[in-house]
Amino acid sequence: MSNIHALQCNDDLIATSGYADQNTPLIHNCWYVAARSSEVSRDLIHRRILGVDVAMYRTLAGMPVAVRNRCPHRSFPLAKGKLEGDVLVCGYHGMQFDSSGRCVNMPSMPLVPSNANVRSYPMVEKAPLVWIWMGDPDLAQEDLIPDTHWLSDPSFKSVTGSFYMKSDYVAMHENLLDQTHFPFLHPGTVGTPAYARSKLDVREEGLQVIIDRALRNSPPPGIYGVPAGIMHKPVDRLSEARFVSPAMHVAFARILDHAPDEGAPSQYRFNITHIITPETNNTIHYWWFNSRDFKHDDAEVDAFMTQASEQAYLEDVDALEWISEVVQKDAEPQFDLNFAPDKPGLLMRRTLHRLAVKESQNLYSHNKKAGEQ
Amino acid sequence: MSNIHALQCNDDLIATSGYADQNTPLIHNCWYVAARSSEVSRDLIHRRILGVDVAMYRTLAGMPVAVRNRCPHRSFPLAKGKLEGDVLVCGYHGMQFDSSGRCVNMPSMPLVPSNANVRSYPMVEKAPLVWIWMGDPDLAQEDLIPDTHWLSDPSFKSVTGSFYMKSDYVAMHENLLDQTHFPFLHPGTVGTPAYARSKLDVREEGLQVIIDRALRNSPPPGIYGVPAGIMHKPVDRLSEARFVSPAMHVAFARILDHAPDEGAPSQYRFNITHIITPETNNTIHYWWFNSRDFKHDDAEVDAFMTQASEQAYLEDVDALEWISEVVQKDAEPQFDLNFAPDKPGLLMRRTLHRLAVKESQNLYSHNKKAGEQ
Amino acid sequence: MSNIHALQCNDDLIATSGYADQNTPLIHNCWYVAARSSEVSRDLIHRRILGVDVAMYRTLAGMPVAVRNRCPHRSFPLAKGKLEGDVLVCGYHGMQFDSSGRCVNMPSMPLVPSNANVRSYPMVEKAPLVWIWMGDPDLAQEDLIPDTHWLSDPSFKSVTGSFYMKSDYVAMHENLLDQTHFPFLHPGTVGTPAYARSKLDVREEGLQVIIDRALRNSPPPGIYGVPAGIMHKPVDRLSEARFVSPAMHVAFARILDHAPDEGAPSQYRFNITHIITPETNNTIHYWWFNSRDFKHDDAEVDAFMTQASEQAYLEDVDALEWISEVVQKDAEPQFDLNFAPDKPGLLMRRTLHRLAVKESQNLYSHNKKAGEQ
Repeated sequence: MSNIHALQCNDDLIATSGYADQNTPLIHNCWYVAARSSEVSRDLIHRRILGVDVAMYRTLAGMPVAVRNRCPHRSFPLAKGKLEGDVLVCGYHGMQFDSSGRCVNMPSMPLVPSNANVRSYPMVEKAPLVWIWMGDPDLAQEDLIPDTHWLSDPSFKSVTGSFYMKSDYVAMHENLLDQTHFPFLHPGTVGTPAYARSKLDVREEGLQVIIDRALRNSPPPGIYGVPAGIMHKPVDRLSEARFVSPAMHVAFARILDHAPDEGAPSQYRFNITHIITPETNNTIHYWWFNSRDFKHDDAEVDAFMTQASEQAYLEDVDALEWISEVVQKDAEPQFDLNFAPDKPGLLMRRTLHRLAVKESQNLYSHNKKAGEQ
Repeated sequence: MSNIHALQCNDDLIATSGYADQNTPLIHNCWYVAARSSEVSRDLIHRRILGVDVAMYRTLAGMPVAVRNRCPHRSFPLAKGKLEGDVLVCGYHGMQFDSSGRCVNMPSMPLVPSNANVRSYPMVEKAPLVWIWMGDPDLAQEDLIPDTHWLSDPSFKSVTGSFYMKSDYVAMHENLLDQTHFPFLHPGTVGTPAYARSKLDVREEGLQVIIDRALRNSPPPGIYGVPAGIMHKPVDRLSEARFVSPAMHVAFARILDHAPDEGAPSQYRFNITHIITPETNNTIHYWWFNSRDFKHDDAEVDAFMTQASEQAYLEDVDALEWISEVVQKDAEPQFDLNFAPDKPGLLMRRTLHRLAVKESQNLYSHNKKAGEQ
Repeated sequence: MSNIHALQCNDDLIATSGYADQNTPLIHNCWYVAARSSEVSRDLIHRRILGVDVAMYRTLAGMPVAVRNRCPHRSFPLAKGKLEGDVLVCGYHGMQFDSSGRCVNMPSMPLVPSNANVRSYPMVEKAPLVWIWMGDPDLAQEDLIPDTHWLSDPSFKSVTGSFYMKSDYVAMHENLLDQTHFPFLHPGTVGTPAYARSKLDVREEGLQVIIDRALRNSPPPGIYGVPAGIMHKPVDRLSEARFVSPAMHVAFARILDHAPDEGAPSQYRFNITHIITPETNNTIHYWWFNSRDFKHDDAEVDAFMTQASEQAYLEDVDALEWISEVVQKDAEPQFDLNFAPDKPGLLMRRTLHRLAVKESQNLYSHNKKAGEQ
């Protein structure tokens, strides 16, 4: 790793050197979470995703639907209209769109105009999440949706929360791949001094970046030890932190208790799901889930894990918002320094940059082809 | 009209194809309403018009005066100064300007500097309105002020209100020339389903765009039927909607009752005056008047018409502000589609575009001439 | 002075003609006040100066320290971290910086990276003020700090206050060099009609611009006359207003009473110190001190002078903020006119412009040299 020691990057260098930052174009050909399942109903809602406002609702049969929140006629926000059955009616001139975005009626016209459709976006529900594809619809393969089966698997119990963040999603992903900040930013929850110094192993699988870390014979941090009831007991802590896609990061923690109490498990599993949907380059819709495989019906544990998670993630949110403000307001741009432990984040930023370049080239060749017609 | 069916326009296309939109330069050689008569008094006020802040007051003789709200010396806003007789005194260094904008005293100088004038703007009062000319003063002919005689004619009684709108005035004028939105945006007031489908006739008179519409033997909408006391009675409804100038739109409605009750009139006249003064390209000072030729002294009718008008116009204001927000925030610009019923609005937008191009050419030749000296 | 009568300047002309305005780059090679002594303590604070956010604290030995409020690693604001002895610890990854900005520990790295320093800024305390040098540290000579000895000299008693202003510092300095506005903007405090018409003498000493004014045998303004107890008594008023540097303006007023009451002094001295630290081109940290050489322990005089000063300076602040808003919002830029009494301000603006040009040339040659390596 020493070769990236002291590597420098700034706004300009990244553009050439290939590391995404807050200015890199967002990635469109990717499944993002548009909403929780519980948010999408017969009441129209809207949310800006990758800079585009999207209206969402559920058909009578329960299928989630997303269309651009802008009527193709006079730009009225369709979420201010109403649903009539499965038809979305614009509140301005009454244009009607079916769940595919096709215009099925324009009251002031004798015939339905053939080209008067609103763009719809592929949606797939994997409860408790509804995923959306904002990019080229021909590429929207359902099997590209990241695995989150533990969120609906009865062997896990999840607590959850959400934040609207004024930060860029690249810095957020870098934060999640970086555990050397735990003892400093999260001293009361996930951070222990020993953890920061534990050996880590970084690898890439396709677009994913994975960190493995094993900390043997050490007391667990409160967020794991308290609910398991093994605080201050030396345990093994195996962690995997995984940049899954621009839309998601997952951390898997396994706490191994080699001398469990009578009737207590010898292993505790925690899956922590970070859902990151960029609203714009500088704002994020962020949902988190903390799932455990024990004490499913213990309301006290639920409350503890909710509180501890919210505290830790709020510390991240605050830090990233402060950084974003510093970066945006500063009259003198800075060349951020990189150190060896930044390697996972830099691998992820290289991937995001490569994806952005590829999309802009596709867009270019697509536009060129369109122009030739 | 079928030839404009499916015509497309967007920001770039408009620039070439010739339809004004939110980015088109504002029209300066035009009379705009600067204020209600009641607003202009011995107390200095100021209002931004076409991007320029204007200070206003009334002379001792009662004449309304408008000057740029920026002292020519150190840019102090003159409306923060004070009136001494008919002289406006700057609050910073005491420079004094007469009602023509001429500097008549500069306390720190022995002589009045000959070039130290503030720009004044021609004003004409046609109660209850005060009109201003922000363009070339040589072109400010009083007979170009649009007719609003019914606002002071005792045979009419008016109710009135105002809004400050975050929208562009082109979209506002287009909204006023477009009556196919009535049943959808204004279902409770002016909109009836039959009206949206009634035949319309569009014509241009010079710069004006006029829509005529006749709806025979149909119940009037509440806003006309209730005050006239002929709700649910089949009547003829003759409407003229007129884009008068960048500053004004007027609608004339005539309700003909062919079987009036004993003593009741056989015709009810409503003149609806929409005064539109762009503050900037994205904000509007909007005043409305709803004038009727019957029940002049009926406070209940006044209250009903005020409430019904405010509700309907607020629906327009809300819709246009939502659209403006969508258009301004969207990361992906949209090509708005046009349909046959959009013809009146497109004629108006073509006129506004032509006026803007003409003014920019005059400005160019003026600047060129000035540069040659 | 008549040769500058009617001289015109605007944004473009200034660039060529050489008068600084709100768009001129800020001057970096200059001592500015960063904070009052009382603000700098063991609790971290931060303040934006010349566009750059600066974290400040005091070492255990009491020395004030300023470093860039942005960690060189991931841009975390260091003022959100904590002090451990004299070491500033970043709140994100625990990087530690000594008071010179040198990184002395990076917890996640076995060795301290040699290049991981944060920029520190020279600071000098001259109680009650702490001065900072934001420019080239090689030029930060302590003897360039302006004299403010009266602020700590026991023969003077000072009252003080501060404002955060939304204005540009050039207009603020121009306001302080311009006393013809006193009777109009400050009629209740420092302004008297006679004063505005009194003869003034303008001269330059190096970069400084000095105005001398003597007003003989005239009643003093309230702000001097009331505390001295010589209101409405004819006195001589000798004033010097001095543009000391981009960071400071000082006014010295001497009131001479040629017929003092028994036991009363024949001279009253007032030193008024205006400390101006640009936050950005359009915002200012402004501190004022009003110092007198009599009635040191009179709480009533303290209260009167505080109230009268705050009133007068608030009038300036309001005026300058109004002007700044007018200038920034106006759709039609204005060529401000200049008159003979503007000469001191124009001399100062010429100096600021010259300094800005010089710094940009040095920066250019510095960058060029760096690029050649």
